[in-house]
Amino acid sequence: MSDCIFCKIAAGEIPSATLYEDENFRVILDLGPATYGHALIIPKKHYANLIEIPDELAGKAMILAKKVVTVMTKALPCDGYNVVQNNGECAGQTVFHFHIHLIPRYKGDHAGVTWKPGKLTDEARDEILKKAAGKF
Amino acid sequence: MSDCIFCKIAAGEIPSATLYEDENFRVILDLGPATYGHALIIPKKHYANLIEIPDELAGKAMILAKKVVTVMTKALPCDGYNVVQNNGECAGQTVFHFHIHLIPRYKGDHAGVTWKPGKLTDEARDEILKKAAGKF
Repeated sequence: MSDCIFCKIAAGEIPSATLYEDENFRVILDLGPATYGHALIIPKKHYANLIEIPDELAGKAMILAKKVVTVMTKALPCDGYNVVQNNGECAGQTVFHFHIHLIPRYKGDHAGVTWKPGKLTDEARDEILKKAAGKF
Repeated sequence: MSDCIFCKIAAGEIPSATLYEDENFRVILDLGPATYGHALIIPKKHYANLIEIPDELAGKAMILAKKVVTVMTKALPCDGYNVVQNNGECAGQTVFHFHIHLIPRYKGDHAGVTWKPGKLTDEARDEILKKAAGKF
């Protein structure tokens, strides 16, 4: 898309701190990192979100996430990793070009990326299962 | 692993609210949901994290995440989705059997799953690129 910043970054039209690149993806450092080493996997073709990206590329993106996490776990002094893919504004997506956040975690970093667990009630469970029944 | 709760759930030895199941994975409702409809993708074989799971299954897990998000976006009144895969205790992983969180998001839900963006300094950028150089 002509007005998409991630299309331009992925194509190399806008410079980026590139960790890795192949025919399908560019992996760059996030300019607004949650932690030291926060990277993004960006496909070179434009898809708004996980629903739009073709299965084959979705699969390859996760295999690449594994590769980046494996390599960077050795390169950085991190103690863990969050792999986060947001869809929709209310989910924190700010650029509407599919991407995966790879966030190295360090003990005591207070980086967030967490939630307060609720409780699955029997009522909610039955209701959700009913809503999903026969849809897969 | 004999003492792994997700191995037992995936095998059906412990009952769960199952949305979907195939030869490789079980998709269940999280008992401590961040939001209404929070689900987990759990592989039937035991792998501690993203680094341990074989490429093929990592790819299939993401394709399944796409499927679940696509189906449940129609089944639930949600406005978005977080797809989160945590590795390591400091990253919020509490069960050391690879899994993917699928968290439906609703406008104004204040569910978290976010972070405060920092700033990538030139110094950090150069340092990280140097650490990663030649490792991919």
